[in-house]
Amino acid sequence: MTHFNLAFAARMANVNASVIREILKVISRPDIISFAGGMPAQDLFPYAGLQAAAEAAFTTSDTALKALQYGPSEGYAPLREAIAEQLRAEGIPLDGNQILVTTGSQQGIMLIAHAFLDPGDEVVVADPTFLGALQAFGSFEAQLIPVPLDAEGMKLDALEQVLARHKPKFIYTVPTFQNPTGLALSDERKAHLYQIARNYGVPIIEDDPYGELYFGHERPRAIKSYDTSQGVMLLRTFSKVLAPGLRVAYAVVPDGVMEKILPLKQGNDLHTASFTQMMVAEYLRSGALEQHLVHLRDIYRRRRDLMLAAMDEHFPTWCEWTRPEGGLFIWVTLPETMAAEPLLEQAIREQKVAFIPGKAFFAKGGGENTFRLNFSNASEEQIIEGVRRLGAVMRASRPALAQN
Amino acid sequence: MTHFNLAFAARMANVNASVIREILKVISRPDIISFAGGMPAQDLFPYAGLQAAAEAAFTTSDTALKALQYGPSEGYAPLREAIAEQLRAEGIPLDGNQILVTTGSQQGIMLIAHAFLDPGDEVVVADPTFLGALQAFGSFEAQLIPVPLDAEGMKLDALEQVLARHKPKFIYTVPTFQNPTGLALSDERKAHLYQIARNYGVPIIEDDPYGELYFGHERPRAIKSYDTSQGVMLLRTFSKVLAPGLRVAYAVVPDGVMEKILPLKQGNDLHTASFTQMMVAEYLRSGALEQHLVHLRDIYRRRRDLMLAAMDEHFPTWCEWTRPEGGLFIWVTLPETMAAEPLLEQAIREQKVAFIPGKAFFAKGGGENTFRLNFSNASEEQIIEGVRRLGAVMRASRPALAQN
Repeated sequence: MTHFNLAFAARMANVNASVIREILKVISRPDIISFAGGMPAQDLFPYAGLQAAAEAAFTTSDTALKALQYGPSEGYAPLREAIAEQLRAEGIPLDGNQILVTTGSQQGIMLIAHAFLDPGDEVVVADPTFLGALQAFGSFEAQLIPVPLDAEGMKLDALEQVLARHKPKFIYTVPTFQNPTGLALSDERKAHLYQIARNYGVPIIEDDPYGELYFGHERPRAIKSYDTSQGVMLLRTFSKVLAPGLRVAYAVVPDGVMEKILPLKQGNDLHTASFTQMMVAEYLRSGALEQHLVHLRDIYRRRRDLMLAAMDEHFPTWCEWTRPEGGLFIWVTLPETMAAEPLLEQAIREQKVAFIPGKAFFAKGGGENTFRLNFSNASEEQIIEGVRRLGAVMRASRPALAQN
Repeated sequence: MTHFNLAFAARMANVNASVIREILKVISRPDIISFAGGMPAQDLFPYAGLQAAAEAAFTTSDTALKALQYGPSEGYAPLREAIAEQLRAEGIPLDGNQILVTTGSQQGIMLIAHAFLDPGDEVVVADPTFLGALQAFGSFEAQLIPVPLDAEGMKLDALEQVLARHKPKFIYTVPTFQNPTGLALSDERKAHLYQIARNYGVPIIEDDPYGELYFGHERPRAIKSYDTSQGVMLLRTFSKVLAPGLRVAYAVVPDGVMEKILPLKQGNDLHTASFTQMMVAEYLRSGALEQHLVHLRDIYRRRRDLMLAAMDEHFPTWCEWTRPEGGLFIWVTLPETMAAEPLLEQAIREQKVAFIPGKAFFAKGGGENTFRLNFSNASEEQIIEGVRRLGAVMRASRPALAQN
């Protein structure tokens, strides 16, 4: 009971608790096998390397000072330089002042939403797409225009139809090992997507947290690597390749955007934690990342293989799923008449196994018959046992869950 | 040159580079004595204690995991518990779920602006007030209503007149050792301010980064300690008492606000860096904070005393300044016909000494004849020498700078 008038802004009608975070709370019990979160493998964090990096912050009075004092809003200079070097090696056109260190890629999404979206502005998104982006765009009252996917990702004929009829502020895409589906656009399709966007003058927000986690022979190209005209804003993060608890990520934005995004960044948190930026910079300087990534890809590939093999063995023939070439997720589609939410309840209750129902990833509803499985943060034993249990629930529930 | 249409949102007309950060760039030369920044003393960071806290994160596999993995959006549980204990000891009414750890208090301000401000909504601010708040409110197109200060801070008769005529969303105030003036409301005035706000049903945002840095006998009360009706949102930070580079702060908000702020926090950065939250929690657990604060208050008091004594000696009699009982800043008022910006240029050029002109702290202009001095982040020698130089510039410049 308050005597005070706490009236939220109109935009808050679009802001609600994250379905995923709510589910994660319910299932955070040690007896449940969870394929629900999108967390990197806790057993694979480079503990020793990051411990050394944290210690290194205190080796000289100059580094200790920089780790603890206020720092530049753009980010810690040695970290930005290391990022720039990596991007250039990848063939991404860049000059010195286009890199903004962000507090997770989530902040990059929110800053761009804050900077570009007037209420009612249109944003093109894949259907389904990353929930955190839907939340950020919703909190600035965007009109979302979902574009369907095929076996690679966003369908470009559908995209062109949308761009011919609408004037969206930008296209938001996770083109490589997408969350939630695990799908990836081919290089050819990425180049084509860029050309379409350029023809219509619509900028692309390329969210690329998973690109380093490829199971093939080389890193898939970024759309940004085709960008000859400063039309792609690229978001990347150290959350999936190092450790999300550091909250260190970055955005690559055109010069003219940096001018406006930087004061917004200051208004948001002044700058990303100096201490964790320095830890990442120090870890990169040690040269250990490449070997760590080789290891990470190897283990994640094996977990993906195991999960797919278990699904082939235990899942009913009447459902389908993706076979991702990287990233953290597999996407399951049930028969249209079958809903994933009651299946989740049953799976938790009867078999102590959990996943994320797909509905929340769809901007305008639909997808009730889909769900997302994470294969990165479970042991091999858990993957085999969890998928077996899930198969059992699916088989047992089919008659009960069929809606017609 | 781009083929892409990068059209910012209308609100971005209000978003510009921070004057302070621009000045800080210009003067970041070792030969300049700077009283410009608002930085805590770099020589007083508890380096050993924070080093031990960083090491402690790696002592068990459970703490290391929590320091590196995704964490709860509300914040690291042991840190929230330590904060709650401190608040209760201070007599601040609280239940368990009202504390949100934020990435600096700046994020608390931005989240509240995001949650409450529709374009054109009114916000009451002190005149002058903290620049970072003006930036955050401006980025959500608030109409700012400045209320003048007297020798304590916000004038309550003027506030009442404003509340009688307007319907502001909230009152933003830094009531204790305010940035930029160093002024503090008495307990009596704080209680009165709360009653006025309650009578009109207007919530208060109490931004309190400096309350622990008092030079008297006890911590000044927070307005929040008078809040019997969930009308005050309190923002506090570890930036000024521990280290700003950790970016760990917190907001205390009513239950109904937490429901909406929490998804916004998720949309902003998911959660504050787990690693630095754990460092703060570990430092608090060590019990070292109280002794560190005694030391900090002692040194800052001495620097304040030195600066005031030097000003009494070297500054011309035709200017006035505050004599703060805590915090980081002294506020100088020149004759009305004299402007601080050209004085700054002259001070840098001729005497290699710097400060922040006051104009930027005024929501609707004015204050050209004011400036802010920081006494926390300069050595005793720098304070004495810098104030002497500044006095020389002021005396020399008076005729040239007089505008009529």
